[in-house]
Amino acid sequence: MNTISIIGSGGMAAAIAGRTAKAGYTVEVISRDPAKAQTLADQLAGGAMIGEYGAVPAGNIVILAVPYASAARVVADYGKALDGKIIIDISNPISSDVTGLVTPGGSSGAQEIAKCVPASAHVVKAFNTLFGHVLARTVALDAFIAADDPQAKARVSTFLERLGLRPFDVGGLQMAQTLEALGLMLIGVAKNGAGSWNIAFNVDLG
Amino acid sequence: MNTISIIGSGGMAAAIAGRTAKAGYTVEVISRDPAKAQTLADQLAGGAMIGEYGAVPAGNIVILAVPYASAARVVADYGKALDGKIIIDISNPISSDVTGLVTPGGSSGAQEIAKCVPASAHVVKAFNTLFGHVLARTVALDAFIAADDPQAKARVSTFLERLGLRPFDVGGLQMAQTLEALGLMLIGVAKNGAGSWNIAFNVDLG
Repeated sequence: MNTISIIGSGGMAAAIAGRTAKAGYTVEVISRDPAKAQTLADQLAGGAMIGEYGAVPAGNIVILAVPYASAARVVADYGKALDGKIIIDISNPISSDVTGLVTPGGSSGAQEIAKCVPASAHVVKAFNTLFGHVLARTVALDAFIAADDPQAKARVSTFLERLGLRPFDVGGLQMAQTLEALGLMLIGVAKNGAGSWNIAFNVDLG
Repeated sequence: MNTISIIGSGGMAAAIAGRTAKAGYTVEVISRDPAKAQTLADQLAGGAMIGEYGAVPAGNIVILAVPYASAARVVADYGKALDGKIIIDISNPISSDVTGLVTPGGSSGAQEIAKCVPASAHVVKAFNTLFGHVLARTVALDAFIAADDPQAKARVSTFLERLGLRPFDVGGLQMAQTLEALGLMLIGVAKNGAGSWNIAFNVDLG
């Protein structure tokens, strides 16, 4: 229960792993490139386990912290090794010119990934509306989650709270479409309206 | 320059008209039902003009404050009467079961409306990410805008600032897709995560 597995070794993987280690969880870092996993593990306060790519992850919560273009292949590589896991999809399926989403109309990256995981696994959309560098350094942030399974959603909510984030349930997994649009909008606001990449969306409770 | 025209007489029309009148603009209220326009005008501090439905609006900025399902018909009724106008589309094209958007994949309500207006008119997406009752009573709020024409966008930005809102440019009109997703997400957060309809999204500038 107290181990969180993170597949990936980029900026978002590092930001999430950093907060997770600080919150007192055991972190398992997994990468197709073991050297990259080791580099990330060495950066973490208290160190981390290194997981074998493709083997059953140690954590019940598995964070898929890879680019959207790689996500389906990673999930296929794992196959039945993800049985019963809660899989957090953090991806932003954004076109290379950053003007739109590459997902099919009426779907989302999270829903597409959900089609590829074992039936006993649960996909939860989270973290995609936060920039990694903001997540790494800003303590209090709002985090939005979408998922179909209530228990998986509750467990991810608890996880986010322990990271110091304020979770907001947006609805079922189909609402990942709105979260992925918000990911694109965050970039749009950073480039156009805010003139800064040090931004985050918060909910104002009136 | 100092007159704002509002087509519509519902809750959002009233909220926008109220802030606009308080900001010192002359408000022109227009409805297919003149009695409804008169009722709204009577509520406004300092009163308002009543415009004739389908005639050339008095304002250079025309706020299309009608449901998405009616917007195309209203724009068609106006036809050339909207020549050269800045048309603010505030609609949320949400399905009746509030689980998704009714717009074609890869498009937005704003882009669909833009196909129907005269070539000399400019469509700006704004106001759709704010609940009317929040807009009516909360002074400081963030407002997001998307549009292709820089001059139209700048003028709407100035208008929003005069209403006490903090405008954020999200990008071109195709980014209205993200704003309409945010409108749906706002409802999702209100129903699921926040347990309150008194919410708004703000940008945290770190």
